[in-house]
Amino acid sequence: MTLGFELLATDGAARLGRVQTAHGSIDTPAFMPVGTAATVKAMLPGSVAETGAQIVLGNTYHLMLRPGAERVERLGGLHRFMNWPGPILTDSGGFQVMSLAKLRKLSEDGVTFQSHIDGSRHHLTPERSIGIQRLLDADITMAFDECTPFPATHEAAEESMRLSMRWAARCREAFVPRPGYGLFGIVQGGIHPDLRAQSAAALVGLGFDGYAVGGLAVGEGREAMFATLDVTTPLLPPDRPRYLMGVGRPEDIVGAVLRGIDMFDCVLPTRSGRTAQAFTRRGAVNLRNARHADDPRPLDGECACPACTGFSRAYLHHLTRSDEILGLMLLTWHNLHYYQDLMRGLRGAVARGGLAGFAAAFAREQEKGDIPP
Amino acid sequence: MTLGFELLATDGAARLGRVQTAHGSIDTPAFMPVGTAATVKAMLPGSVAETGAQIVLGNTYHLMLRPGAERVERLGGLHRFMNWPGPILTDSGGFQVMSLAKLRKLSEDGVTFQSHIDGSRHHLTPERSIGIQRLLDADITMAFDECTPFPATHEAAEESMRLSMRWAARCREAFVPRPGYGLFGIVQGGIHPDLRAQSAAALVGLGFDGYAVGGLAVGEGREAMFATLDVTTPLLPPDRPRYLMGVGRPEDIVGAVLRGIDMFDCVLPTRSGRTAQAFTRRGAVNLRNARHADDPRPLDGECACPACTGFSRAYLHHLTRSDEILGLMLLTWHNLHYYQDLMRGLRGAVARGGLAGFAAAFAREQEKGDIPP
Repeated sequence: MTLGFELLATDGAARLGRVQTAHGSIDTPAFMPVGTAATVKAMLPGSVAETGAQIVLGNTYHLMLRPGAERVERLGGLHRFMNWPGPILTDSGGFQVMSLAKLRKLSEDGVTFQSHIDGSRHHLTPERSIGIQRLLDADITMAFDECTPFPATHEAAEESMRLSMRWAARCREAFVPRPGYGLFGIVQGGIHPDLRAQSAAALVGLGFDGYAVGGLAVGEGREAMFATLDVTTPLLPPDRPRYLMGVGRPEDIVGAVLRGIDMFDCVLPTRSGRTAQAFTRRGAVNLRNARHADDPRPLDGECACPACTGFSRAYLHHLTRSDEILGLMLLTWHNLHYYQDLMRGLRGAVARGGLAGFAAAFAREQEKGDIPP
Repeated sequence: MTLGFELLATDGAARLGRVQTAHGSIDTPAFMPVGTAATVKAMLPGSVAETGAQIVLGNTYHLMLRPGAERVERLGGLHRFMNWPGPILTDSGGFQVMSLAKLRKLSEDGVTFQSHIDGSRHHLTPERSIGIQRLLDADITMAFDECTPFPATHEAAEESMRLSMRWAARCREAFVPRPGYGLFGIVQGGIHPDLRAQSAAALVGLGFDGYAVGGLAVGEGREAMFATLDVTTPLLPPDRPRYLMGVGRPEDIVGAVLRGIDMFDCVLPTRSGRTAQAFTRRGAVNLRNARHADDPRPLDGECACPACTGFSRAYLHHLTRSDEILGLMLLTWHNLHYYQDLMRGLRGAVARGGLAGFAAAFAREQEKGDIPP
């Protein structure tokens, strides 16, 4: 094992931990802001760090197409390129090839596709994905897999999972261990418990630095997602970090931490910040709503982010109505800060063995809805 | 006089000064970033201050339409609304009514127009303009005038100037003096020296806290602009600040400081920042140009802004090519920092009596063009 992981406390299935990478450590449960094209959209990297984020995610698919992995490597790697000195996790490119690229052709070897940017042809294999992530200098490399579509029959989900497991073995082979760098395998199998179990067993047999749960948050609904986690996380080695990919809403994260997940990523806080949606302790708030036009209160009086400490709801409303860039800058910052506040709360609750109470209080506050003006 | 002004040094016609307002002082020659809709686009107000800017400009036309001057007043004024604790100058709305509004109708009383946002009808007069700027709580209020179009015959320029002077008298009447707040008159008269002289005399007769030169940078060219300044600034009281409206390019600013101008505003650094254009000591640089794709150097190795200290040209190029918001955030910041660096340089040169040498060195560097990779 080349990636450090300390398990510091548990509370039921939930865990408090610390991942050690070549570029610093990550307190878990952790939320990773998404920095698709080598930038967390509308944020300076120093501002991302100010929210409390300790690791960001980069997307292999986007970066291989633009500016190109070899170019990033020549320029000193992704940390230097985007001026983020902390840990970086890169995905494998598999998910985005299937959701963004054109004229995809899947074979045992990998995927051939056309760039959504300029139509250029590319071939992505487990070996090439690992190679790209090495060029980017990712602290955490993700195995190349096929994200099983939803819904999928048991047969289709099994076939897809078995391909991902064969690719996982090739990734394991291709990954060159270095101190502080790790490779995560990805459990697939849709919402079928037997397939999840087979996938987990296959990956644990190969041995990875961490284990991701993939193929969720693709339309199956929260109940099915939680049910899948309930049968999957107990099969993963307790001494390795667990990452639920692409999740999610704050309530999804709380539920997944209760089920033993350590790491998360999602575009929701950043994307919502660009569409006037703010996350608060009392649920989501749409700043475009006219009720904010004369409201002198901050978005959230208990939030320490610049949007909440410096400006009124009336001003944020004005910015969003006027399509001002500062509006999406401030709301992105607020949302990322909110997510990190949530993770700090979750870690504190696990540390003191009070996660059940924390989760109940969280749900009660969320259900109350926004404080009226 | 309710607005303080100290003249600290002169160098030829150029002046080093300090304007004292209710919200702090401004070292002149000063450049005022434009914060049209209560935000300097793509910048947090704290970042604007970090560039060295001491005063920002707000646009009466935009703010009266959205969010509305009465609303800004209810919310505590423009400083609090946009979280800019320093001095604010607002224009009168006259220029933008003529350039942005629809169905304009000019009369002796004022201008009737339709909002470019929602088509609503509005009437702007000298008295209403002063009233709006009072509601906004502007430290420096501009007289309501008609920006004479270019080209204009002597007759048309004279008629327009005389209307502006009658409006200036009404503005002077309507403005309620308060300590630290001031009203600036605006010299008009196109490129006609006799009209400029008549306009300056009329304004000086009324007595203002400062004097702006309006109606320039509207297509007359640099030579005509400088010639007009040459005949105008000597007619303005030396103990009052002088503001050249809507100017300009770095070389325009240097030339106008040489001719005795103290204050400037222009959208150029912010607007250019949103179109991948960067100002540097060695001229303008277009970051979209492919020659930057592999360039590990900073945009300007001697610049202390976050874009230059944190990132390579290759990264800035990548951001602009990828239409990433961070690209325009960083280039806006750089451009505003560059402009403030220029003003610091100009103030230092006037202080030591070396402005002619500074201006010559500035022109030489600009002509060299960008350093090749």
